[in-house]
Amino acid sequence: MINVSKAVVGDGADLWRTTHALAENHGTLKYLVATAADYDAAFGKSEPLISAFIATVDGGLAGTAVMHRSYSTFAGRETMFLEDLSVLPEFRRQGVASALMKAVAAEALNRGCPKISWWMMDWNEAGRSLYEGLGAVVDTEHRLCTLSGDALKELAV
Amino acid sequence: MINVSKAVVGDGADLWRTTHALAENHGTLKYLVATAADYDAAFGKSEPLISAFIATVDGGLAGTAVMHRSYSTFAGRETMFLEDLSVLPEFRRQGVASALMKAVAAEALNRGCPKISWWMMDWNEAGRSLYEGLGAVVDTEHRLCTLSGDALKELAV
Repeated sequence: MINVSKAVVGDGADLWRTTHALAENHGTLKYLVATAADYDAAFGKSEPLISAFIATVDGGLAGTAVMHRSYSTFAGRETMFLEDLSVLPEFRRQGVASALMKAVAAEALNRGCPKISWWMMDWNEAGRSLYEGLGAVVDTEHRLCTLSGDALKELAV
Repeated sequence: MINVSKAVVGDGADLWRTTHALAENHGTLKYLVATAADYDAAFGKSEPLISAFIATVDGGLAGTAVMHRSYSTFAGRETMFLEDLSVLPEFRRQGVASALMKAVAAEALNRGCPKISWWMMDWNEAGRSLYEGLGAVVDTEHRLCTLSGDALKELAV
């Protein structure tokens, strides 16, 4: 049985486990420098920037969804960004991702957010099928740009 | 002469003007429902989710950059998202965008953010040239997904 609950301080270790699994799956482990304590610190803030849901199957950790607050200049309102949706390999194809997405959608409405946005890797056909089945629009025109490291420091001078 | 300053409550009207120009340029005016008052309300919060820079040329409004707070589960830290970078048509090719990007980079470092991310439209060759010139990486694998409207409401039930 799938159960979904809101993450609280102390759940950082569970979130780290699923984030680690996601990074392994995406071949991006080298970019994962966060610790469980980082997540707990974020949950413990007075106005937390992030929130998360934890899904268990028969009591065992099965997956997580991590959201952060966002804002749309077109809507003029806070929106929700789904930063990570991760289901542990041994719990795939059991409805865990759908249950998490449902909780995320309810939370977005509760907060008055007009939309949820997230990134999907282009090769993630299982994700595309799930998301489009839920009524999401997968955009082809937007490109993600990132400035970090030395380039960021040099520009700032 | 280009001057860049941080937006404060009362600058909502300037931000609305540049957001409107951006929407016109992108052919997305129908999605712009925000008002200047929405932006001022956002700036006036105790822990604002958004921040912005206003660029003027010889005292006249030339462009704006609007950022919102973000979070990376891989970094385990707050990051910066550049929601909009808009230069009014009559002020293009004068270095306004670069001056704004420089201010955004300095603000990111001030806040301890390890990266700035943003979206670019795939057809925006001028943007690509500017961003890559600044050392940004334009990713081709990420796809933006959005769930809103009736689909969002139906999933939440």
